[in-house]
Amino acid sequence: VKAIKPARVAELDAADPLAHKRAAFELPAGVVYLDGNSLGALPKGVAARLHKATIEEWGQGLIRSWNDAHWYPAPQRVGAQIARLIGAKAHEVIACDSTSVNLYKVLWAACQGSGNLIITEADNFPTDVYLCQSIAANLGKTLRAVPGAEIAKAVRTAGADLACLMLTQVHYKTGQLHDMAALTQLAQAHGGRVVWDLAHSAGIMPLQVHALNVDYAVGCTYKYLNGGPGAPAYVYVHERHILDLQQPLYGWHGHAAPFAFSEHYQAHAGIEKMLVGTASQLSLLALEEALKVYDDVDLTQVRNKSLSLTQLFIDLLDQALPEFTLITPREPALRGSQVALSYPDPKQGYAIMQALIEHGVIGDFRAPNILRFGFAPLYLSHQDVVQAVAIFTTIMREEIYRAPRFQAQKAVT
Amino acid sequence: VKAIKPARVAELDAADPLAHKRAAFELPAGVVYLDGNSLGALPKGVAARLHKATIEEWGQGLIRSWNDAHWYPAPQRVGAQIARLIGAKAHEVIACDSTSVNLYKVLWAACQGSGNLIITEADNFPTDVYLCQSIAANLGKTLRAVPGAEIAKAVRTAGADLACLMLTQVHYKTGQLHDMAALTQLAQAHGGRVVWDLAHSAGIMPLQVHALNVDYAVGCTYKYLNGGPGAPAYVYVHERHILDLQQPLYGWHGHAAPFAFSEHYQAHAGIEKMLVGTASQLSLLALEEALKVYDDVDLTQVRNKSLSLTQLFIDLLDQALPEFTLITPREPALRGSQVALSYPDPKQGYAIMQALIEHGVIGDFRAPNILRFGFAPLYLSHQDVVQAVAIFTTIMREEIYRAPRFQAQKAVT
Repeated sequence: VKAIKPARVAELDAADPLAHKRAAFELPAGVVYLDGNSLGALPKGVAARLHKATIEEWGQGLIRSWNDAHWYPAPQRVGAQIARLIGAKAHEVIACDSTSVNLYKVLWAACQGSGNLIITEADNFPTDVYLCQSIAANLGKTLRAVPGAEIAKAVRTAGADLACLMLTQVHYKTGQLHDMAALTQLAQAHGGRVVWDLAHSAGIMPLQVHALNVDYAVGCTYKYLNGGPGAPAYVYVHERHILDLQQPLYGWHGHAAPFAFSEHYQAHAGIEKMLVGTASQLSLLALEEALKVYDDVDLTQVRNKSLSLTQLFIDLLDQALPEFTLITPREPALRGSQVALSYPDPKQGYAIMQALIEHGVIGDFRAPNILRFGFAPLYLSHQDVVQAVAIFTTIMREEIYRAPRFQAQKAVT
Repeated sequence: VKAIKPARVAELDAADPLAHKRAAFELPAGVVYLDGNSLGALPKGVAARLHKATIEEWGQGLIRSWNDAHWYPAPQRVGAQIARLIGAKAHEVIACDSTSVNLYKVLWAACQGSGNLIITEADNFPTDVYLCQSIAANLGKTLRAVPGAEIAKAVRTAGADLACLMLTQVHYKTGQLHDMAALTQLAQAHGGRVVWDLAHSAGIMPLQVHALNVDYAVGCTYKYLNGGPGAPAYVYVHERHILDLQQPLYGWHGHAAPFAFSEHYQAHAGIEKMLVGTASQLSLLALEEALKVYDDVDLTQVRNKSLSLTQLFIDLLDQALPEFTLITPREPALRGSQVALSYPDPKQGYAIMQALIEHGVIGDFRAPNILRFGFAPLYLSHQDVVQAVAIFTTIMREEIYRAPRFQAQKAVT
């Protein structure tokens, strides 16, 4: 591996078409934030939007704001913003509830056919696996959780018995990227439906869920989409399924005419049928503001920069810290926007991450032994990557992580 | 009916032990807000709390705030705040999701026994009825929706076939208050479980869900609890049911050890098993701040004032506007904190409410012909009630509501 020269890093930043986007975020001084894959940074407009929503719209407008401040259609508006980012039509996406609750709705819908098998990845994000377990138990299906490399084989083996393939596009631990086009096509060729969790892929690359004929998708908005802690999630349903889709959470906002206060549930004909209760409006308006950062963003540029950042991080680590094992694929086409590492001594991973955080390089640790570093292309520079690796190297070479305060195991949350 | 004298109204306000609470709210000038049963007013501390949560905790603390700013246990903390208001133990209540989603969880749990019948009130709030319809369909139960006056009889008729009685304590249209003690006891005597929706009763009177042995309850926090538009809801489970309860929304935050990232769902042993996805933190922190207004409030005083306000409104209407029909029970023990009226000409109800709102008296209209006025005891005075009726009388006597702008039917939302 050839050495990375400072001049080369400066060139990369100078040529970055997204460099100006960093100014759209509030970021703490002295920090290289590599955890945007867990909680995205704060876009500058959000605090003012929340203040207006609170003081003017809620405080002064009160109940009138559901109409006058256009609160009611916020789930649809935010859905349309997200639709552009995932390659859906505006009327195929709506913002509501949590990713988990939305998964329940679409897994239920996806498993209404005669197929018996739900296939997912064995170490998919826990909530995805748990919801598959629940749907399998409650709809009398069988869940098969297989390693990532065996998914295609499992689908082929299932044949016509496949009910649904449920996958997260970018793995939350390894950062590995599944081939959405191929796996969607394969599952559908066997008569199954596909549900994709886009939590770790929306906002870091161009997605084309509609063009790829994806049946359903869900995702959270607090990672690369910067919607804020626990921001409302979204759900996508391909337009060919919307009219016939049934989901069991019959809430009044999913009714064809919520304000007719009819005694019989009649699902809305549109994507609104995925709504349940009243939208968490303050969080939703914060999210709407946050998403404006993406309005003028070309996702191809985002993808290019993402790969450039992760490649630089990998290259620098190869030089400086070869004792770490790279968990994330080296092949750019096979990874999302995070880099996961493991350390030979599995007992030290957590302490190393605590030391990094104290020294201003914020990533996170995932049991049993993964250090995760997420690269949000809208607010990170190549220079940030260099700085992070420099600090990382110091922490390892000077064994700073061996200090008692890092060694003392804290509650992992 | 004897005339209400101004001096009497001044005396009532002077003797009001809760009068000082009005200063805890931001309220628009020139408005008598009688829609706190739909969206509560803004408590003064909320905007500052949201600003801190956004700028400091999210913006500067970033991912660290889940621990350092104590975000993780917010659902439990808010649950404990609400527990005091509904007469539950702190570990029996948790804040999460929407009322509708929480209803799904507890109805599912309530219907796991051998009983076949779900009984609810025929014109219960739509989302309650819809969720009963979904659970009945999906668990193979039978739903019987009967008029309020026939509930006790329906329970007796059901006998051992009763699975669950699901009721809203205060009716969203009529304001009628059910006898929670008697109906709970009756349903349980027949082997059924009870689910109460407290949306229109929490915060306006002392509640004793635990002492009354109530099995499950849900409620929203954006009405009398002033949590903000679409604020997170809550769910109560009597402690005797918590360990055995199963609910089908297997989300990672309901897991016994969410951060072990285990592949198999194992429900938390505590009320945390009702959690699903990540809490909508900004909305939740706003709610936590809003609930502080209730910290030093005696709910018996709240109930007394609520009845005093609604009684005054009813008495003044009897004198000034006898052409309206009172839908809400005259008997204080049978009503919550709202007064519902209907007008002889059903086509005029909506126009009358629009005229009232334009003239600063904000209530709401519920199809087909109900004018609702909610009385939030923490921020309304008896003088407000007098003023509201005076404006109301002018609008009727001068036929202001007949103006074309009020007659033009607007979209009802």
